[in-house]
Amino acid sequence: MRADTYFNGRIGSRREIAVPLSDRAIYFGDAVYDAAIGRNGAVFLLAEHVDRLYRSAERIDLHPRIGKTALCRILCEMTKGWEEPFFLYFQFSRSETGARAHTYSEEAGCHLLILIDRMPPPCRNAPISLITAEDLRYAYCDIKTVNLLPAVLASKRAERAKAEEAVLHRGAKVTECAHSNIAILKDGVLYTHPLGPRILDGISRRHLLSAARAADIPVKERAFTLSELWGADEILVTSASKICRRARLLNGKSVAMRDEGLASILCNAMFDEWERATAASEGTSAEEEKPKG
Amino acid sequence: MRADTYFNGRIGSRREIAVPLSDRAIYFGDAVYDAAIGRNGAVFLLAEHVDRLYRSAERIDLHPRIGKTALCRILCEMTKGWEEPFFLYFQFSRSETGARAHTYSEEAGCHLLILIDRMPPPCRNAPISLITAEDLRYAYCDIKTVNLLPAVLASKRAERAKAEEAVLHRGAKVTECAHSNIAILKDGVLYTHPLGPRILDGISRRHLLSAARAADIPVKERAFTLSELWGADEILVTSASKICRRARLLNGKSVAMRDEGLASILCNAMFDEWERATAASEGTSAEEEKPKG
Repeated sequence: MRADTYFNGRIGSRREIAVPLSDRAIYFGDAVYDAAIGRNGAVFLLAEHVDRLYRSAERIDLHPRIGKTALCRILCEMTKGWEEPFFLYFQFSRSETGARAHTYSEEAGCHLLILIDRMPPPCRNAPISLITAEDLRYAYCDIKTVNLLPAVLASKRAERAKAEEAVLHRGAKVTECAHSNIAILKDGVLYTHPLGPRILDGISRRHLLSAARAADIPVKERAFTLSELWGADEILVTSASKICRRARLLNGKSVAMRDEGLASILCNAMFDEWERATAASEGTSAEEEKPKG
Repeated sequence: MRADTYFNGRIGSRREIAVPLSDRAIYFGDAVYDAAIGRNGAVFLLAEHVDRLYRSAERIDLHPRIGKTALCRILCEMTKGWEEPFFLYFQFSRSETGARAHTYSEEAGCHLLILIDRMPPPCRNAPISLITAEDLRYAYCDIKTVNLLPAVLASKRAERAKAEEAVLHRGAKVTECAHSNIAILKDGVLYTHPLGPRILDGISRRHLLSAARAADIPVKERAFTLSELWGADEILVTSASKICRRARLLNGKSVAMRDEGLASILCNAMFDEWERATAASEGTSAEEEKPKG
């Protein structure tokens, strides 16, 4: 059986590895993470996810001893046997021995946890269902921490309503989803909440905006309202694991699905990138390049 | 050596126990906790802390199989050898095997973690120092979850400023501290933020309000502002581990300490209760009661 779990140098199956009580993720949520998908042994947009992990760590004053290159090497080593689509999760947590105390010492260490799970292949064409939910989260949504309970509860509400995601709003303004970013198309213009403490700087969000600019679709990074969401021509939900999905139901009612042309340009650009970057031929091309070496 | 750690029926030292990766506290902060102090084998206000733990669990849709009485029995069993002051921490976390997913299954289990640490005796007379910090937390502050990173970061800022606590404020309004409630005395009236999603329903806070009512000190549960904090006659900071402390410095400047009479009535009522409830004579009185049995 392939190893799917790593903790501070130990590699094994999910049941073989456990987290010591010196790990402050357990009782303070004192940890940051990132997650990517891959297949054929390749991790999609790995460098961008690793960069973001280090930015998140910096924001919570956590300073891993391991460098980015060494981390990438471990992540690639762990995933190289995975041909089928996989979800790769990696986390830095603050570690400290001694009595539980909110504050941490300057010498606190940093634990590294890695999990790999099989996942269904990301789905290019099936539109999803959404619900709306009040955004009750903190003002650190731009840091990818494990303080995810509000997202967990909103996700569960979505699931109970047979929806895939919860669209979060502060008052009338849509911020993002419980575990995705969100954008709308209206009259040929792409709108999404600007960066800042209220949303995650999503990597798929960045690629969506790049795809829009490449296709000459005007982009406006400004918060849109719930009523603009209801009136949108298209609703696009992006995340590492979903890549980019159109939405067709909101709180059980039909929405969007009125500009398939533009929506397809954007979704296809992102899915094509995923397919190119993780194609099974990667091994072959490495073979082809060998003679040059 | 006494056992100071419990996890799902396993008892041992901090290093002997580890948390399995099925524990969603590790990557979702999907856990609630409570904490109390004690000495001479007695836990102070145990039933109130256990009640609150179950209320917290209910709020996050977590349903422990263990009942309150059984939990109290385990907590008492774990702490009975502890004569010196101790800090008792207990946590319910959602557990689930399978791939990481925000949403949880209806059959998700519940892990129980207990930690005991030695602590310095709570200090009745030394006033503390505070800093102010913006309250960036979520809207679930009335649930005692492990989503504590904003409290961790504010506590670290306080420590770096040589202060014991950070007073959190939303705009001009003071909510509570990073890991305590806060009240002020002004012209003989006690003010503190009303209950609701912005503050914890602190057990020491409840006892402070009871002590005030018992002493005919009028109580107003309404948010006070930063400028009222600066102008307060007394600032009282309450928590399970501190019990009740006066503050004398705010952001390095002298504050409060202008109504020692009333402050002492309140602090003494709370410390007297702690001392009575955890007196070493507990064993003796049990001996004395024996003949009646």
